[in-house]
Amino acid sequence: MLDPVLNRINNHLDDAIERWSDFLRIPSISTDPAYADSMRQATEWLRGQLEPLGFQVDVRETEGHPVVIAHHPGPGGDATHVLYYGHYDVQPPDPLELWHNDPFDPTLVDGPHGKRMVARGAVDDKGQLMMWMEALRAWHAEHGGLPIRATILIEGEEEVGSRNLLPVLERYRDELAADVCVVSDTAMWDIDTPAVTYTLRGLLYTELTCRGPSHDLHSGFYGGAVTNPINALTRILGALHDEQGRVRIPGFYDDVIEPSQEELAQWQTLNMDEAGFLGSAGVSVSGGGEQDRTLLERLWSRPSCDINGILGGFTGPGAKTVIPREASAKISFRLVPDQDPDQLIAAFRDFIEEQAPAGCTTELEVHSAAPAIRIPTTSPYLQAALNAMGTVYEREPVLLGCGGSIPIAAWARDILGIDTLLMGFSLEDDGMHSPNEKFEVTCFHRGTLSHVALLDELRKRTDY
Amino acid sequence: MLDPVLNRINNHLDDAIERWSDFLRIPSISTDPAYADSMRQATEWLRGQLEPLGFQVDVRETEGHPVVIAHHPGPGGDATHVLYYGHYDVQPPDPLELWHNDPFDPTLVDGPHGKRMVARGAVDDKGQLMMWMEALRAWHAEHGGLPIRATILIEGEEEVGSRNLLPVLERYRDELAADVCVVSDTAMWDIDTPAVTYTLRGLLYTELTCRGPSHDLHSGFYGGAVTNPINALTRILGALHDEQGRVRIPGFYDDVIEPSQEELAQWQTLNMDEAGFLGSAGVSVSGGGEQDRTLLERLWSRPSCDINGILGGFTGPGAKTVIPREASAKISFRLVPDQDPDQLIAAFRDFIEEQAPAGCTTELEVHSAAPAIRIPTTSPYLQAALNAMGTVYEREPVLLGCGGSIPIAAWARDILGIDTLLMGFSLEDDGMHSPNEKFEVTCFHRGTLSHVALLDELRKRTDY
Repeated sequence: MLDPVLNRINNHLDDAIERWSDFLRIPSISTDPAYADSMRQATEWLRGQLEPLGFQVDVRETEGHPVVIAHHPGPGGDATHVLYYGHYDVQPPDPLELWHNDPFDPTLVDGPHGKRMVARGAVDDKGQLMMWMEALRAWHAEHGGLPIRATILIEGEEEVGSRNLLPVLERYRDELAADVCVVSDTAMWDIDTPAVTYTLRGLLYTELTCRGPSHDLHSGFYGGAVTNPINALTRILGALHDEQGRVRIPGFYDDVIEPSQEELAQWQTLNMDEAGFLGSAGVSVSGGGEQDRTLLERLWSRPSCDINGILGGFTGPGAKTVIPREASAKISFRLVPDQDPDQLIAAFRDFIEEQAPAGCTTELEVHSAAPAIRIPTTSPYLQAALNAMGTVYEREPVLLGCGGSIPIAAWARDILGIDTLLMGFSLEDDGMHSPNEKFEVTCFHRGTLSHVALLDELRKRTDY
Repeated sequence: MLDPVLNRINNHLDDAIERWSDFLRIPSISTDPAYADSMRQATEWLRGQLEPLGFQVDVRETEGHPVVIAHHPGPGGDATHVLYYGHYDVQPPDPLELWHNDPFDPTLVDGPHGKRMVARGAVDDKGQLMMWMEALRAWHAEHGGLPIRATILIEGEEEVGSRNLLPVLERYRDELAADVCVVSDTAMWDIDTPAVTYTLRGLLYTELTCRGPSHDLHSGFYGGAVTNPINALTRILGALHDEQGRVRIPGFYDDVIEPSQEELAQWQTLNMDEAGFLGSAGVSVSGGGEQDRTLLERLWSRPSCDINGILGGFTGPGAKTVIPREASAKISFRLVPDQDPDQLIAAFRDFIEEQAPAGCTTELEVHSAAPAIRIPTTSPYLQAALNAMGTVYEREPVLLGCGGSIPIAAWARDILGIDTLLMGFSLEDDGMHSPNEKFEVTCFHRGTLSHVALLDELRKRTDY
């Protein structure tokens, strides 16, 4: 059943690009109230795409921009139930003067890999979500139905922090139930190497406040006698890492799962361009984190600790000889499987108490605490995605980690109890959020083919 | 020659209080431009007090409020030449509603030590400078001249940072040359124990900036790989003290002079109320500084290191997962004899370089660097002051240290090359800068007697 659909994609690529361009012409900028009508127009455009495929489409209101929720019953029986997630909103295009074309007049431009689409949203996320929509469309056109049961959730606030996504997932929890969530909003390893992102670090975000005297003091009259809260805070924070860059909180690494030999071997074959990665940060040495681990290990499989902000005392120009009454810092930990945020909070509290000098009190506030996400490499859905991409690409698909967090992946797990397949096709140089954002047509094309192949893989799972 | 002058003071105390009250009625608030006329009025009032004593008085303009400079030739010959310093400006009286009387309507109130004068400036510094003016007046009235050569410098900007004092000292350096500077702007040990403040800590004030990536980074994508400037900064600052509260910069204590056994024994006899001192800061333990030293040692004879301000990354409410490009802190050191600020700057730079992790650069800016001040206990002027107070008080006068710096003392040394006798009569509870500022009449009275006795001591120095 696969080949006719793949052929249809190949033979009608120009039509798909035309639809993609239509979508890109809608300036659905979520952060700017002036574009509220365009946001509404985007949801109606999506309805117009999905209803002809047999989806029942609802545009549901939230406290912000509406979400599109659509259902397709599929073939019935025990067909796999997929929840597709995407977002129809885009970043503002500023600074406009750096664009070579109107950001909402999508333009095909020649590049080293053939044609590329240049427009705001070309890749993030309109281009990426169009791939699975085009896959569903082609399958429907060829076979008059879908091989899976499908639910679609497309939000309009990803670029402004997905602030209504969690309430939507909670309110429509039953309706959004599925076997697996599929998302295209991540990157390939390189233009010829497709990838599934299978592990995401968790995040524990805290704020530590040290308090000393009841009011600001003159450092001449009290310096050397009274505990200075900034001295105390930096003493605690300065003790967080040892010489090798390891976090010194007792038990911090106890539950950390080491990557398997297979995973390490695969990462090795990726031949990461470390100099290029560091160069993107404007540095030449990887001074952060554990010095005895490779960069990819540190980013994907090792926890880290960063102080994200610190404030205390006099911070204006010049000098003021003050011992302030308090000082505080925001300290976050990136977590990996199987670290338990609650255990780490307790261990961090003990560590603070141990390190804090006499004469100051400490308070630890927890802003958020989410464990890491890891899709087991033995997951049948993960295997289905790898098989699908293996059908389309000559190179073997690879499994990538990601140092950051992706809200839908965490919330799909926490609220819906399902794994998320992060099967994305963007490239590092696509310029998401930047002027002249682009998406390579070959990525769009082969990404669409991969989503078709994924449909076929999932179909076969129930055919077995 | 002394007794008739002391008797005159005792017999005409009410007249002195009347003049003191006149001075206090002038609302010479330096920080508020609305009181410019009152500032001018205060200088003319001082001229009216000094000219009848044979002083040649000049009111000299500065870029801010004028200074009063006055000269009296004294008896001629090799008479001791004293530079008296004071300030005629006062703090604003706010919050007005907390005063029990109009702050510029000086009121005598009964207290546990007899009458006290309540008014803004009662002690700081109008009451204190009136003591030496009254001493000069009484001597002149009794003997028709002064036993010393006298130069007077009274500024109007002490409460706003003495910003034009240094230019005045530099411009009139030759004219202000003297043997010793006498100031009444410090405190007694207690109401019955007079004191000279003979040692002041110096101040080295620096600002350290750590820089890492070329732009702010996402801590998910770079955390654990790239050096975080806040992590680096807190690592350096956290290493500044050891477990015992000693500064860990190599060589930091090399040139520190230990107080003599006599000094330590005298401090011991002071029976410092440590709980009261700590209570004034709102703390119950002395967690700062060297734990094996007494509080007085730490404040008067030991150097200290305080971080006065720190800033980096995201400091708003909530959470932001940023690795900032830079972070900075203001770090000051209180210095004691014979620490050399320049040597310490070099040692601190080495320490920073040693502690800074790879992947970050550091920059140290020096805002100011002034060594400690110490009047040798063998100084004949210091002895004269102690003898003078010994004449008036039953208790032995004591030598105090001061953890802070006093601009006139440093600049008199640096610009004029002379020591400053800090002979003050305020009490800890006088409420300088606060509502209901007061000065005990007994302090004013015995302070005036002490200044008469000092004149006699200095007279005898040239009579020998």
